[in-house]
Amino acid sequence: MTEQQRLSHLDETGQARFVDVSAKSVTVREAVAGGAVTMAPQTLATIRAGDAPKGDVLGTARLAGIMAAKRTGELIPLCHPLGIDGAEVDFEFASETTLRITARVRVHGRTGVEMEALTAVSVAALTIYDMAKAIDKGITIGDIALHSKTGGKSGSWTRTAD
Amino acid sequence: MTEQQRLSHLDETGQARFVDVSAKSVTVREAVAGGAVTMAPQTLATIRAGDAPKGDVLGTARLAGIMAAKRTGELIPLCHPLGIDGAEVDFEFASETTLRITARVRVHGRTGVEMEALTAVSVAALTIYDMAKAIDKGITIGDIALHSKTGGKSGSWTRTAD
Amino acid sequence: MTEQQRLSHLDETGQARFVDVSAKSVTVREAVAGGAVTMAPQTLATIRAGDAPKGDVLGTARLAGIMAAKRTGELIPLCHPLGIDGAEVDFEFASETTLRITARVRVHGRTGVEMEALTAVSVAALTIYDMAKAIDKGITIGDIALHSKTGGKSGSWTRTAD
Amino acid sequence: MTEQQRLSHLDETGQARFVDVSAKSVTVREAVAGGAVTMAPQTLATIRAGDAPKGDVLGTARLAGIMAAKRTGELIPLCHPLGIDGAEVDFEFASETTLRITARVRVHGRTGVEMEALTAVSVAALTIYDMAKAIDKGITIGDIALHSKTGGKSGSWTRTAD
Amino acid sequence: MTEQQRLSHLDETGQARFVDVSAKSVTVREAVAGGAVTMAPQTLATIRAGDAPKGDVLGTARLAGIMAAKRTGELIPLCHPLGIDGAEVDFEFASETTLRITARVRVHGRTGVEMEALTAVSVAALTIYDMAKAIDKGITIGDIALHSKTGGKSGSWTRTAD
Amino acid sequence: MTEQQRLSHLDETGQARFVDVSAKSVTVREAVAGGAVTMAPQTLATIRAGDAPKGDVLGTARLAGIMAAKRTGELIPLCHPLGIDGAEVDFEFASETTLRITARVRVHGRTGVEMEALTAVSVAALTIYDMAKAIDKGITIGDIALHSKTGGKSGSWTRTAD
Repeated sequence: MTEQQRLSHLDETGQARFVDVSAKSVTVREAVAGGAVTMAPQTLATIRAGDAPKGDVLGTARLAGIMAAKRTGELIPLCHPLGIDGAEVDFEFASETTLRITARVRVHGRTGVEMEALTAVSVAALTIYDMAKAIDKGITIGDIALHSKTGGKSGSWTRTAD
Repeated sequence: MTEQQRLSHLDETGQARFVDVSAKSVTVREAVAGGAVTMAPQTLATIRAGDAPKGDVLGTARLAGIMAAKRTGELIPLCHPLGIDGAEVDFEFASETTLRITARVRVHGRTGVEMEALTAVSVAALTIYDMAKAIDKGITIGDIALHSKTGGKSGSWTRTAD
Repeated sequence: MTEQQRLSHLDETGQARFVDVSAKSVTVREAVAGGAVTMAPQTLATIRAGDAPKGDVLGTARLAGIMAAKRTGELIPLCHPLGIDGAEVDFEFASETTLRITARVRVHGRTGVEMEALTAVSVAALTIYDMAKAIDKGITIGDIALHSKTGGKSGSWTRTAD
Repeated sequence: MTEQQRLSHLDETGQARFVDVSAKSVTVREAVAGGAVTMAPQTLATIRAGDAPKGDVLGTARLAGIMAAKRTGELIPLCHPLGIDGAEVDFEFASETTLRITARVRVHGRTGVEMEALTAVSVAALTIYDMAKAIDKGITIGDIALHSKTGGKSGSWTRTAD
Repeated sequence: MTEQQRLSHLDETGQARFVDVSAKSVTVREAVAGGAVTMAPQTLATIRAGDAPKGDVLGTARLAGIMAAKRTGELIPLCHPLGIDGAEVDFEFASETTLRITARVRVHGRTGVEMEALTAVSVAALTIYDMAKAIDKGITIGDIALHSKTGGKSGSWTRTAD
Repeated sequence: MTEQQRLSHLDETGQARFVDVSAKSVTVREAVAGGAVTMAPQTLATIRAGDAPKGDVLGTARLAGIMAAKRTGELIPLCHPLGIDGAEVDFEFASETTLRITARVRVHGRTGVEMEALTAVSVAALTIYDMAKAIDKGITIGDIALHSKTGGKSGSWTRTAD
């Protein structure tokens, strides 16, 4: 194969592909993702008390996550743009150092919303970091993972161990 | 204090604050952040071999991280918009299941670029998830943390233990 | 109820909600909104004559309103992203000091386009301010209101008095 | 003058102009703008009580206003893009039917931030409408005006009567 | 006709129109567009060899084109926002000075994707310019044209001569 | 060199680079770019007469070009975000089939505005295509090239032959 042939058919040679979903059916699809933000106990106490330097942390993080979910297709290069139907971002104080985030997203579409749920979790976590970093630069974001998905031809999937 | 007084001075009562940095000096500031993407060995091998379903994973993730760093101020509600001077996103195969991401961002500005570096890492990681999720939905993103920052009045900071 | 229970179920406790519309039907929906820009007679005369400092005011404001309607879901945090089918922005010189703006937006969707029409009016009005502010900083924007909506389960609504 | 001459020099003939500010000095500039949202007393009471259908109205509107201020240059066609240094959005229950919004924005820049302050007020007001429209479609947005500006060669300006 | 009548009916008088497509049917629509980037032979050789100053040129240009296709409705004022189903951007070294770009976009929608395909080609071409301009400022972009479209009531169209 | 070493130092191996400009000086920089849109004589006559299907073609294209120039850093992956100081987009009817576009952009910055000027020309040209495509799908965009640049350490550059 000559170099010109290779370059005129890059799709077969490992280059990035924006997968065509036009033959897929529109169904209701849902995805749930989660993550954890770990910090010093005093930082978490400050967030719970609403005294963080930039103000109401969880309310701001929730909105940031929802707004990011709507723009996932702009951020992730090969992710399809979707007009999502609903999104929820919830928080749980899981321990004295850990704040857990869960995002649930739904859509009528030809592709799933795993990336939208994961993006909502990630941007909510980053927003928590931003609002608390003046008092704790050592905050760590982790455990970002898909918990479940439903809808679409491939059917449901649930994470086996968390 | 009456309710009206409270509401006309919400800044003192825990609401979100977009901190005024107009009195800060413009200096060169740099931040380095990192993260890890953990997956099945076969998934990581596929990414290394360039055979992932959506194509060249690391090249795409690098660009996604750089482009997201430029738009951090749009994603993080109380983060200042900055015209960054430079950004690098690098990858390391740290083990047979772990891909490590490092982002380094620089700016001449009145605020630091911690959020830009953390956002670059997060969006690069999400892009890796997106490109490999057809073969491994159990991929986990973690260890997202600031490694160091320099510049600004508060001076340098380096993470003590990683 | 313990604090942790409250925080893990924030949706029931007054936090922001991105309402799930996945159970709603797709129908043709339309909304009409209006607003008024009030200014000195000389300013309005300059706009009519096409002599404003930044140029063709109404043509620019119309485009700004249409383009903003397309991006309403990015601006309004809990507004669903919609791919609108049509949008019109019209102007009327209602008095020697008042320019009235009307926007009409249509969509096939699961939610209405009230926010899109109101956003089109608001951004068109802001654009008029921007283009004329060099000669009249005292311009006021007002009377921004929904005039009517049709489509959807809740049916039609028309403003009773304007 | 022939038609071709006219068309090759459209800047002199009333077309939209993106004014060149490269000869202006960078100074600290500030602008304050305000607006009012008028609604039924029951609607305002519901917002104060935090019981609006989409949740925490003022906190969400504040963030929406701040985030919109950062993107003003994208929305207003001939407005310069600016990296703002600070923004505040405050609310006051001015009467049993009126919620007043004030936005204050600062920048080091070659142009003022009047449009950023006015955009913050407008988008905060639209967000209030969005969050309360399920119970009151007759809400009206008005009195959007510049209150004051400082900085720049043209100096300070204060609205004479409000 | 009085001036006020004219201004209250601007749609009939030559002003910009965002055409209403709500009466059109949703069908699968596809468009193919192409373009060419012409440069010095040494520049093209450098791109082929992967030695351009900013790195992997074609991979970056492909992603830029795909991402721009997703945002066409934001860039082109009167273009409808569309959630595209698929997009491909391919390259061919057509001569020792010419790199040809082809983009193919598909959607289920009420309007075609000609603009999305043309935008993908244009932004891919601009990205090539950006990545190679340090070694060749004389690069020229040309031959940007629609090659074919299918779907919709107006049926198929194919460029007669290229 | 092992594969892991290569991957942990991708910057030296041909991957995309977002060049660090933090050591460059802020100077006034200007770029001028041009392009041509070629169409059937009847199409050009319709545009001149203001009778194109979507309305005022040149006014809309000018605004689209200016607005795109402001967002160049979002579209071109490795292009630095810049707060431009000024932008002009002009048109000339160069023959009975050719409309020429010229864009001039200025900035105080650490990098030049070549990409901003080229992007303004490209998006203005695409907008012309969009507004006239209902009557002429065969329109071609070409001759997009940098005409000149000034400012910065590398000094001025002017295209030798056009």
